[in-house]
Amino acid sequence: MIGEIIAIGDELTSGRIINSTSGLAARELFLLGHEIRAMQTIGDTPELIGEALKTAIVRSDFVIVTGGLGATTDDLTNEAVVKALNLKTVTHPCVQANIESRAAKGECPSAVSLAKLAQLPEGAEVLDDDCRMAGYLLRYLGKPIYFLPGVPPQMEILLRDKVLPGLQSLDTTRAMPVAQRVYRTCGLYEIEINNRLHSLEQEGVQIGYYPVGAEVHVSLTGRNMAQGVDDSRFLRADAFIREALGDNIYGTDEATLASTVGVLLKHRGWMLATAESCTGGLIGASLTQTAGSSHWFKGGVIVYTNELKQNLLDVSSELLAEHGAVSAETARAMARGTMRRLGCDVAVSATGIAGPGGGSKDKPVGTVYLGLCCEDTISHRLCRFNGSRRQIQEQTAQTAMDMVRRALLAQYSQSALKENS
Amino acid sequence: MIGEIIAIGDELTSGRIINSTSGLAARELFLLGHEIRAMQTIGDTPELIGEALKTAIVRSDFVIVTGGLGATTDDLTNEAVVKALNLKTVTHPCVQANIESRAAKGECPSAVSLAKLAQLPEGAEVLDDDCRMAGYLLRYLGKPIYFLPGVPPQMEILLRDKVLPGLQSLDTTRAMPVAQRVYRTCGLYEIEINNRLHSLEQEGVQIGYYPVGAEVHVSLTGRNMAQGVDDSRFLRADAFIREALGDNIYGTDEATLASTVGVLLKHRGWMLATAESCTGGLIGASLTQTAGSSHWFKGGVIVYTNELKQNLLDVSSELLAEHGAVSAETARAMARGTMRRLGCDVAVSATGIAGPGGGSKDKPVGTVYLGLCCEDTISHRLCRFNGSRRQIQEQTAQTAMDMVRRALLAQYSQSALKENS
Repeated sequence: MIGEIIAIGDELTSGRIINSTSGLAARELFLLGHEIRAMQTIGDTPELIGEALKTAIVRSDFVIVTGGLGATTDDLTNEAVVKALNLKTVTHPCVQANIESRAAKGECPSAVSLAKLAQLPEGAEVLDDDCRMAGYLLRYLGKPIYFLPGVPPQMEILLRDKVLPGLQSLDTTRAMPVAQRVYRTCGLYEIEINNRLHSLEQEGVQIGYYPVGAEVHVSLTGRNMAQGVDDSRFLRADAFIREALGDNIYGTDEATLASTVGVLLKHRGWMLATAESCTGGLIGASLTQTAGSSHWFKGGVIVYTNELKQNLLDVSSELLAEHGAVSAETARAMARGTMRRLGCDVAVSATGIAGPGGGSKDKPVGTVYLGLCCEDTISHRLCRFNGSRRQIQEQTAQTAMDMVRRALLAQYSQSALKENS
Repeated sequence: MIGEIIAIGDELTSGRIINSTSGLAARELFLLGHEIRAMQTIGDTPELIGEALKTAIVRSDFVIVTGGLGATTDDLTNEAVVKALNLKTVTHPCVQANIESRAAKGECPSAVSLAKLAQLPEGAEVLDDDCRMAGYLLRYLGKPIYFLPGVPPQMEILLRDKVLPGLQSLDTTRAMPVAQRVYRTCGLYEIEINNRLHSLEQEGVQIGYYPVGAEVHVSLTGRNMAQGVDDSRFLRADAFIREALGDNIYGTDEATLASTVGVLLKHRGWMLATAESCTGGLIGASLTQTAGSSHWFKGGVIVYTNELKQNLLDVSSELLAEHGAVSAETARAMARGTMRRLGCDVAVSATGIAGPGGGSKDKPVGTVYLGLCCEDTISHRLCRFNGSRRQIQEQTAQTAMDMVRRALLAQYSQSALKENS
């Protein structure tokens, strides 16, 4: 089916808040074979909301509207809907009962302050079975319009549990599901990947390239593939990409550098620890986004000052004086100190100049040294990143995780070699 | 002037990548008094791009198009433009020369691989003086169409340096600049803030509410205010909001919790250190996003395991066995240990259950204890957060920084009291 997504809120058209819900909905719909004709963003103006809604529902098979359903005075979507579609407003008893019970339990300031949540267009079918979250389905011209909250986590739950199954049950065209795989890479420039995959693009599959900091994500898309990702054309393209990019691919689809590092560590039964200077904790924070990271991440130190590099990691003042805090020697000493003081199997360290100040001719902003200690081997790597302070920190964290991944892969192939010999 | 923003890319309509550039452009344009009629997102399909472009340029005063200008084969914007507006493609000599010099220096794989970058619609005025970044101005029907790269940092530079000044020089209507201030708060629910500010909304200024994790950002907007934020109506509303929300407001506009904490610490000449368990480094990473944080942030430890809580922070095994790692006692011991072992003036600690596993009836997922050590006082706080693992970690980091902020404010008013007595 062909659909449209309308996101509502002055915070979006004035650029105060980045719209993340439309993209999320588009993703899920795309993977089920639906096509998104357009995504629109409109302010909290009832006339513009009504106009966009009427246009969209006439020309498309379904519409998803997000935002403006809350209890505060700038939430105007319901008002716009009843005006545009010429409906009455009615009190929804289940929502009203829920508000009263929450107020009685002290979970909200008062029932009066939330009363607006129960005032819905006639015919609205509330989506949340418990009537706790805003959001409803309205049928118009025989087509579904789904109204969802703008708050991402609530929107996500209702989309997955109600909207997608609802649309699938209505879909009489039975579109062939799209086959898509995302190859997540670290270590090659985008244009280099494009060059390696160029010949594949002429075989009727679609390739997309998306740099994300130090990573490049490559998407392979095939439409009308009856067997999905097991279709022979898809399998051929998949093999081509894996051959061309090799171990620069760290994983596919939902894999992250952190989850990949975690799998490799768990396989060895090893614990990782970190020593961070310029990233200030971002490597640790990235690793621990992964659920279950306590099985392979022991912890780390944020040694933002030279004093802590000495006290927590035994980096000597002589070494710091001779080579500076941003140097290969310091990165190596930090990794070695982490190994010894934190008692881990693998240690990774980062020291660099995230900017905007602190750069020099020899060591400009973006100069970063990474250190790695794995079994008895210490290594380091010099990186030169571009971008803002935050971007330099993010690229550093990504590259540090990739350095751990490559060391574990090398370890793994060495031990496989030994077993085979 | 009234403008439209068109973002191009299959990665956007398929939801693979969240569109952040449109919001950025909208923000800057809004603050200069321009109005955004619509923001559209369209895939890499030349026909759809051309159609959207022609519609937009007829009905609006200017159009900004982002994305699809790169050298990879999925970049199709230029192709769409020449077809839709019936133009020739010409080689731009300055861009061509730049590609060749970069290839000669080894900064890119080869001149051939980037040749596409120099093929532009006739009449295109390249925006980057050095011809390094993609992006150009095209005049059509006497109105400007700006084409900008989809990569956020490049887009941002060209927008600020070229597009905004260019539009201001064309603006004959001389729209009154909009006066806007954003009040950043931590410590009150959104609906509670709405209740406190409700009476203000009827006085002709516009208020917006935007929850961001544990924070709520409140925007105050006035249009046609000749004096901008010094307009008397704006000043009255500003005073009302500050009185109503008190020290729940931690800062305005671009202030962050981290930068606010930094200013307070610097004022005292104090150094902060962190001890993180469930946040895995996110408090440190959030603090060090602020440039110059080395003046007030000493560093921290990520004590993800009980072993490190003992070894790095002297939390006793008896205490851990008796109260558990997620407890007020452990949070307090972590803060005390950080003070002693890292030698700082203020220490903040976090221990909790970020989920999805690890919860129990007494301590469900989202249970977090924060500890704080400031001068001779140790305190703690129990929080119960909702959401995903990442959301719980983010709310924990925000609330930990807010706890430091409130302790420093209390310190400050105490010492002011002493001085005055």
